[in-house]
Amino acid sequence: MATLPCHVHFVGFGLIASSLARALRVLNPAIRLTVYDHNPAVRQSVQDLGLVDQVTGSLSPVPEGADLVVLAVPMLAFSEVLKDLEVPPHAILTDVGSVKGIVEEALRLYAPSLLPRFVLGHPLAGTEHSGPEHGFAELFQNRWCLLTPLSETHPSALAMVKNVWEGVGARVDTMSVAHHDQILAITSHIPHLIAFTIVDTAVTLGEDLCQEVVQYAASGFRDFTRIAASDPTMWRDIFLTNKEAVLSMLDRFTEDLEALKTAISHGQGDVLFKTFTNARRIRRDIIAAGQA
Amino acid sequence: MATLPCHVHFVGFGLIASSLARALRVLNPAIRLTVYDHNPAVRQSVQDLGLVDQVTGSLSPVPEGADLVVLAVPMLAFSEVLKDLEVPPHAILTDVGSVKGIVEEALRLYAPSLLPRFVLGHPLAGTEHSGPEHGFAELFQNRWCLLTPLSETHPSALAMVKNVWEGVGARVDTMSVAHHDQILAITSHIPHLIAFTIVDTAVTLGEDLCQEVVQYAASGFRDFTRIAASDPTMWRDIFLTNKEAVLSMLDRFTEDLEALKTAISHGQGDVLFKTFTNARRIRRDIIAAGQA
Repeated sequence: MATLPCHVHFVGFGLIASSLARALRVLNPAIRLTVYDHNPAVRQSVQDLGLVDQVTGSLSPVPEGADLVVLAVPMLAFSEVLKDLEVPPHAILTDVGSVKGIVEEALRLYAPSLLPRFVLGHPLAGTEHSGPEHGFAELFQNRWCLLTPLSETHPSALAMVKNVWEGVGARVDTMSVAHHDQILAITSHIPHLIAFTIVDTAVTLGEDLCQEVVQYAASGFRDFTRIAASDPTMWRDIFLTNKEAVLSMLDRFTEDLEALKTAISHGQGDVLFKTFTNARRIRRDIIAAGQA
Repeated sequence: MATLPCHVHFVGFGLIASSLARALRVLNPAIRLTVYDHNPAVRQSVQDLGLVDQVTGSLSPVPEGADLVVLAVPMLAFSEVLKDLEVPPHAILTDVGSVKGIVEEALRLYAPSLLPRFVLGHPLAGTEHSGPEHGFAELFQNRWCLLTPLSETHPSALAMVKNVWEGVGARVDTMSVAHHDQILAITSHIPHLIAFTIVDTAVTLGEDLCQEVVQYAASGFRDFTRIAASDPTMWRDIFLTNKEAVLSMLDRFTEDLEALKTAISHGQGDVLFKTFTNARRIRRDIIAAGQA
């Protein structure tokens, strides 16, 4: 078994980072945990939670003893962070961003020397809540964490980051950056965009009708609003940084929706029935895959 | 307090009807419950469950002692059922259909003499499962049941049906047929259509990619597949019978989605941020309205 880190430093400390911190503390009560966050309110909240050993408002330099640095900032903040980040010479780095292409790009542009020891990662976990106060140690249990190593990534760095995620209960898989961004566009980004859209459609119905929609929110809409309650900054950044994959998948979705619209309009019950039956089968596959 | 029925006869016995039967039995252990279902497998399942006093494969006549008849069939079956249904002279009737316009239409066309004692109703409750074996007595607790009385509806019939739903824990509200169908289009029908569509989009990605989508179904897609696992026949009928409201709301949704697509494509982060922030507020309203 590869080593686990003794001192993890977090750059940005929201739901994911604080859950990882909690899980690492359970795994090794003696671990040293330090946090940078640019937001004074978050720093205060981290102090109050008493989860970590030290909190700072200075991005750089990273505390000297850190052997793992976890970047957990919104996607559009990566460039700024990587431009300014001074890390101890042997520290391994990883991130938890939902889009990997933009992280690779920022790395190559602003911190190419970090390439061998930077392991791009993405735990497929989260809730509609944000902020360190909503994190919990069990968040990653039986969830996937996708790592997208680059050709430069050193195997020992990959092994350590894999170890960390498996240590906190995740199942780890590796794939290419481009493949990751395509898969996530369909499994996560498009569903969120659609959820945001339909809630927005309800808002623009006018106040009276919108109030009734809220009041009678049946299954369906209610579930969409839960998805749409996710952090606006995080999602804005995801769509702006995974633009290509999102727009291409969105085109497919729009085509499929138009086809169903035509089927409804023409009264083609057989087309609807077939599509709905296929959809139901996928649900069974997901339950069988243990992701339900 | 108005009277409660002593003998309820169900025409069609799926998730909703069987949940109502269970809840009525809790409310009054002495109640007589009888069931017609056209499907022999469902009749066998009802016999095996031992929930009701009698099961029949003959639609008509309705058992003589029934003082409440609950129609719980897919939307497209209403015409056939109403054409052939012989009901005891004083029995009150109600239904649980998701679309009310088509029920009114079928009533006026095939059974106008029933208009004074037929109370159109729709409990906003359900799960992605179907069939009598998945029903449970608590399904309607704190959920809305919308009644859409017509100008002909007799107040005593309305009072009894209201009483039944309140008796099983639902909150009852009344509104017009057209208004109901519009509200439901946005709160339930469009979300389901979208969920079916995105799951269908995933299916058409090709087997390899689809398998990965299933494997890594993150939050978002996973929730959509749950919604999309609902009964295909029921949903086919809903879209075919609430065509106008669904297509009109779908046009609005498509416009809103196009606007967000343009915002992504043009990198307009402020537009995305504003939309996502609004959506989050709606979720808070829904939680405040007690529907979360």
